[in-house]
Amino acid sequence: MTERARFIALEGGEGVGKSTLMRGLVAWLSQKGIEVVQTREPGGTPIADQIRKIFKAPPEGDEITSETEALLVSAARAQHVAKVIRPALANGQWVVCDRFSDSTRVYQGLFGGVALNDLEWLIRFSTGGIEPDITFLLDCDVAVTSHRIGGRGTSMNDDDTARYDQGGQLVLDRLRQGYRKVAGFYPARFYILDAARSADEVLHDACAELERRWNL
Amino acid sequence: MTERARFIALEGGEGVGKSTLMRGLVAWLSQKGIEVVQTREPGGTPIADQIRKIFKAPPEGDEITSETEALLVSAARAQHVAKVIRPALANGQWVVCDRFSDSTRVYQGLFGGVALNDLEWLIRFSTGGIEPDITFLLDCDVAVTSHRIGGRGTSMNDDDTARYDQGGQLVLDRLRQGYRKVAGFYPARFYILDAARSADEVLHDACAELERRWNL
Repeated sequence: MTERARFIALEGGEGVGKSTLMRGLVAWLSQKGIEVVQTREPGGTPIADQIRKIFKAPPEGDEITSETEALLVSAARAQHVAKVIRPALANGQWVVCDRFSDSTRVYQGLFGGVALNDLEWLIRFSTGGIEPDITFLLDCDVAVTSHRIGGRGTSMNDDDTARYDQGGQLVLDRLRQGYRKVAGFYPARFYILDAARSADEVLHDACAELERRWNL
Repeated sequence: MTERARFIALEGGEGVGKSTLMRGLVAWLSQKGIEVVQTREPGGTPIADQIRKIFKAPPEGDEITSETEALLVSAARAQHVAKVIRPALANGQWVVCDRFSDSTRVYQGLFGGVALNDLEWLIRFSTGGIEPDITFLLDCDVAVTSHRIGGRGTSMNDDDTARYDQGGQLVLDRLRQGYRKVAGFYPARFYILDAARSADEVLHDACAELERRWNL
């Protein structure tokens, strides 16, 4: 066991297997007697969920600007950190979060055109400086991702990122490259998982990295 | 006539007469052939109105933090500036806005405890640097304000600031002092109107100041 609670984030585009890895990691950590809180962004509290609804389905005729979206995502994150993540960590519980600040750097920054410096300020303000101890980037060729998303049927419509994905493989590939670029900014924090492999192999790789870092 | 469109903001606590002054100013400017867009914060666009609803009535059991509130107010402002204020000014129309950034400095800053430096950053990011050419602060003794609010009956419940006002005169007085303090930070932009006078006298004072500044 390690001495303090850890914060693990999972990042990557649609269809890379974040939900599956989340389940696997939570089960593996729990078997080791570690209490885990699993959560997600955007969302994670009632207020954050309401905020999410606004940029998921903005009212017709009022196209949301990138700056508004960056501020809304940050508002949801501020609430989520204050009410869920920070209290859990303070309480000794580990946190596994599906998407966190790096998705903002990709979607609102590299994609949306908001300056990364401005996003860094917003991320620091909204998190109070809390950041993941490790961020797993699930990375794989978009041909694989597209195939998996296609297999989901209607679930695409329920996803916040659906509108980014509708442009097809070109958009998915830009997202993928965006995540790889952001991972390059924080090489110590990121661990890139080859997500083209089977779910079991990906999970094994992730668990091995946690053991290596923290002697679990 | 002046050469460019002007942005006029009205600030002050509840019951000081902002709505009445707004009507009077718009009528007066229109008589001079000036096209005026009247708007308000928080709100002013469909998205901004949705954002406003969140901090007006947050879901039960999820108390909103001051940082979340500052980010939500800024998100609403970013949308409002991008979709209403900036296009109007670019189009040669004047803008009269009921509450703007100074209300954030008072409510989220002096009241909510968010550092004013952080709010300055958020205000600059959300407005893109647009600020009022003049801000009228309607200022008067809280005994007068309380009496006016009392006369409104149920309208109190419809106001975003009702929860700040329910603490009674002490809170109203802290708000008043907050606005006076913020006005002191920007002496060139602010013009303080003694709002204990009749609505006609207040309007006359405000119009005289506009004539003095811009030779209307």
